[in-house]
Amino acid sequence: MTSGFGFELRAQDTQTAARLGRLTTRRGSVDTPCFMPVGTQGTVKGLTASQVKSSGARLILGNTYHLALRPGGERIARLGGLHQFMGWDDLILTDSGGFQIFSLSDRAKITEHGACFRSHIDGSQLELTPEGSIRIQEQLGSDIAMVLDHVVALPADRSLVELAMQRSTRWAERCLEAARDDCQAKFAIVQGGLDTQLRQASAESLTVLPFDGFAVGGLSVGEAPADMYRVIAETTPYLPADKPRYLMGVGRPIDLIEGIARGIDMFDCVMPTRNGRNALAFTGSGTLRLRNASHADDASPIEAGCPCLACRHSRAYLRHLFIAKEMLGPILLSHHNLTFYQRLMAEARKQIAAGTFSSWYAEQRSQLTET
Amino acid sequence: MTSGFGFELRAQDTQTAARLGRLTTRRGSVDTPCFMPVGTQGTVKGLTASQVKSSGARLILGNTYHLALRPGGERIARLGGLHQFMGWDDLILTDSGGFQIFSLSDRAKITEHGACFRSHIDGSQLELTPEGSIRIQEQLGSDIAMVLDHVVALPADRSLVELAMQRSTRWAERCLEAARDDCQAKFAIVQGGLDTQLRQASAESLTVLPFDGFAVGGLSVGEAPADMYRVIAETTPYLPADKPRYLMGVGRPIDLIEGIARGIDMFDCVMPTRNGRNALAFTGSGTLRLRNASHADDASPIEAGCPCLACRHSRAYLRHLFIAKEMLGPILLSHHNLTFYQRLMAEARKQIAAGTFSSWYAEQRSQLTET
Repeated sequence: MTSGFGFELRAQDTQTAARLGRLTTRRGSVDTPCFMPVGTQGTVKGLTASQVKSSGARLILGNTYHLALRPGGERIARLGGLHQFMGWDDLILTDSGGFQIFSLSDRAKITEHGACFRSHIDGSQLELTPEGSIRIQEQLGSDIAMVLDHVVALPADRSLVELAMQRSTRWAERCLEAARDDCQAKFAIVQGGLDTQLRQASAESLTVLPFDGFAVGGLSVGEAPADMYRVIAETTPYLPADKPRYLMGVGRPIDLIEGIARGIDMFDCVMPTRNGRNALAFTGSGTLRLRNASHADDASPIEAGCPCLACRHSRAYLRHLFIAKEMLGPILLSHHNLTFYQRLMAEARKQIAAGTFSSWYAEQRSQLTET
Repeated sequence: MTSGFGFELRAQDTQTAARLGRLTTRRGSVDTPCFMPVGTQGTVKGLTASQVKSSGARLILGNTYHLALRPGGERIARLGGLHQFMGWDDLILTDSGGFQIFSLSDRAKITEHGACFRSHIDGSQLELTPEGSIRIQEQLGSDIAMVLDHVVALPADRSLVELAMQRSTRWAERCLEAARDDCQAKFAIVQGGLDTQLRQASAESLTVLPFDGFAVGGLSVGEAPADMYRVIAETTPYLPADKPRYLMGVGRPIDLIEGIARGIDMFDCVMPTRNGRNALAFTGSGTLRLRNASHADDASPIEAGCPCLACRHSRAYLRHLFIAKEMLGPILLSHHNLTFYQRLMAEARKQIAAGTFSSWYAEQRSQLTET
């Protein structure tokens, strides 16, 4: 166990696997279920640190791969670590780079030693090993580090999925061995594709190791939502109840609710910011495309009662900003979408605490999937 | 005189023509000398309204030409006016569109009736007359409206400069005639190129009309700074001491100081935001190019003691944002530059009030022109 880290299970829904918890790191606590905005290159795109905080976020994600390539882990360490560098005084989780090697480098070569790949910035040849990933994450000084994992595209042959899963476990062990910072929490990542037995085997082999939390990885890579939900439901029972569970890179609002109902505590995704930059707003009753001409004279906000920066303005103004290609459109909509995700998580926590999660869950399923 | 408008001259420097004043509109007051950030399309590029306010600005400029083309004056009127549309509850001055017709439309045709031009957005044929400009500015609901003027590129034949100057006076009269909103202040614009006699004739013909303030227009269009300073010095003595004077579209920090020393009260310019988006920062000792490799490991802020959003971060972080093409770089540097301009104006006001402007002016001249 990592010094200063803990997870307190505060309530559990009786009809679903939804849980209310509090995760504590060396830098403070965050209530779960929680959503982490993604700050890939040392910034949540388009927003100042104080705007990210005003969306309700307390824990954000940094991408080890991107930061290692530019401006470099050693440089960030010299400049006081990632928190200082980006001016974020709350919690940071860093991923390991495994998913980026999978998704960004079409010429990545993965061996037992690690991954060789070409930089997406300058094409230079680089290597990322389990030990290297942990070293960089220690340079970044995040509060939670993830192990390097071997992610495969789905669908894939069972033998490849099994090899990658078993390798991910061996890499997780090497990450634990390599870690020097006793106050940085370490999370393992369950792999195994869409295969129930492989997921269980992965969970069983990782949960005997002294990790602080467990992620479900390798999902949202092309499979149908129903398959993703099934794999989550088949995996979480094999994860310890007293440790946090993190569904990596997922997803739409409905996916978060479905994940919570299956026992997930933590989420991250670029959807709220990426879609916000593209004029798509999330609301409690579906999505809105702000470039649509129907908003040209609409004096109402995206969502009445929303405390975000965008909802101080009319839809007509937001549409104008996007049509006129003004930066403020992406800025305001990113803030709205992040605020929406945080409010959704806050509402889920409230419903779990009140013992009313399952009826709320049923409502959300019908409202969020309609549009 | 416009109801609710006034200008109080509070102090005058004894060795230069610098003045301390307070300009009052229907929506409140602003101390002068003052700088107006430019909000061309209903947004100061990259910043929320509250960030613009936190830079120290109280009075901003909106562009009639751009807003009339998109989203349209009538639409903004239906949505409650420009203040409501963009969420700015402080003062707004709108220009008339004269300068945009001059600078954006290479196929503009100007007659005594007005300007015919092609839209820079869709190429459609449009007309802007003195009466039309005032009508749009009343739809926008700005606190100060500018008359439509005929701007010519310099150098130009004296006969063309004279024709445009005399036409500008006739157009100014038509603007006064056309105005229906008795609470919207109206400013005239002195033209006359670099010709002393024409500038004086323009000022004399306009100052007999009941305008609330007078602008010096048609400068910063290609002439040398020394020529611009000379024209300002030769024009302001012909403007009434008890009305505000506005130097349009100028300029660099040194140009503002030189303008103040020659009796100018108000400025606007896109330089702080445009340069900010291009990684150029203004400081009290010159400019900094934040993309420069020399900043890669620099833990110091752009300017110690600056209260802006950028100066919470290191130069190394700001450089990283620009190199990584993150929106946050332009956002933070725009805020820094606007804050720098506002602090410069606040310092000028303080120096005039203390009777120490002329020695401060000498210092600024040497510091700001060195780099």
